[in-house]
Amino acid sequence: MNKHVAPVALEKAYRLLNHGPTVLVSASHDGVKDVMAAAWACALDFTPPKLTVVLDKISKTRELIEKSGTFVIQIPTVAQMQLTYELGSHSLFTEPNKLQDSGVELFSVEGHEMPFVAGCSGWLACRLINEPHNQAAHDLFIGEVVGAWADSRVFREGHWYFDTAPAELRSLHYIAGGNFYTIGESLQIEKP
Amino acid sequence: MNKHVAPVALEKAYRLLNHGPTVLVSASHDGVKDVMAAAWACALDFTPPKLTVVLDKISKTRELIEKSGTFVIQIPTVAQMQLTYELGSHSLFTEPNKLQDSGVELFSVEGHEMPFVAGCSGWLACRLINEPHNQAAHDLFIGEVVGAWADSRVFREGHWYFDTAPAELRSLHYIAGGNFYTIGESLQIEKP
Repeated sequence: MNKHVAPVALEKAYRLLNHGPTVLVSASHDGVKDVMAAAWACALDFTPPKLTVVLDKISKTRELIEKSGTFVIQIPTVAQMQLTYELGSHSLFTEPNKLQDSGVELFSVEGHEMPFVAGCSGWLACRLINEPHNQAAHDLFIGEVVGAWADSRVFREGHWYFDTAPAELRSLHYIAGGNFYTIGESLQIEKP
Repeated sequence: MNKHVAPVALEKAYRLLNHGPTVLVSASHDGVKDVMAAAWACALDFTPPKLTVVLDKISKTRELIEKSGTFVIQIPTVAQMQLTYELGSHSLFTEPNKLQDSGVELFSVEGHEMPFVAGCSGWLACRLINEPHNQAAHDLFIGEVVGAWADSRVFREGHWYFDTAPAELRSLHYIAGGNFYTIGESLQIEKP
């Protein structure tokens, strides 16, 4: 874990996802690790913090999550755009060297079994809340966030600082066909 | 409906939501109309297109959706930031003049019962897929998209054109405390 990574209070963890970034989902089971990209992840509750993520049956990551009951949702950066696309367009089922080929770097956090992706701006360690109907009918998985961290250069004291942090730390927002948007400028409403 | 609004093919409708914008949710029942803001809306499936949205029990819009079985998810613009905040911070339960006070302008679309919010960049007309457990336990609602439209100045032929459209048409991405981000610049991956 690099020197910029700091814990995020669980009651502020939803803010890592609130602006709708594309995420990386990682999990491991029985020595097998996988990471995939997902555009369909969303906050679900504040306290305890929960989130949803849609995981297609073709992804090995989904199988690892079903077996281990744990996963990490992390927020990749502009610097990781190519990596995010690679991890989202190859499957460990058909490409056993997917992780090595992608160049993804993993790290571990004491007290958590799951693999974390280095270089992201935020991490949400999750415990699967098992909902067999949602998983089977909608590919929809619910996680309770049990630990959260962020790169303090771009997220600290519960707030994003995209305007002043290095531009390569901005979040990615995927559309289709290899086309991403970055998050843009900060705006504050006028309060009465 | 203004002259810029054009239909979106249902198989491309998910792209209106894929980059994670904050949305406005509107519904009506028995002559009562309401609109609320929601940061927790997400695509769920491609064909037929489906989406999820989290609706707190304190919102009148939720009650109208449960009674009517229909709602609209629309993408507000930078020009509507103050409106989006107002619609998200007042409840029709306690403020019967909420809609008039907010200045929100509604329009109707032939063949659809729901009220649509004028001035947005995209609209997804939805049929509620009733899931009592998700609604009660997680405040989580699933809709099937039965019609989609966009402002062709910023979304056409299945693609967003935020880079070249007027800046006030960019999408909003809410964090907390009246702080929004706009969507930023477009980036394309290098294909091998």
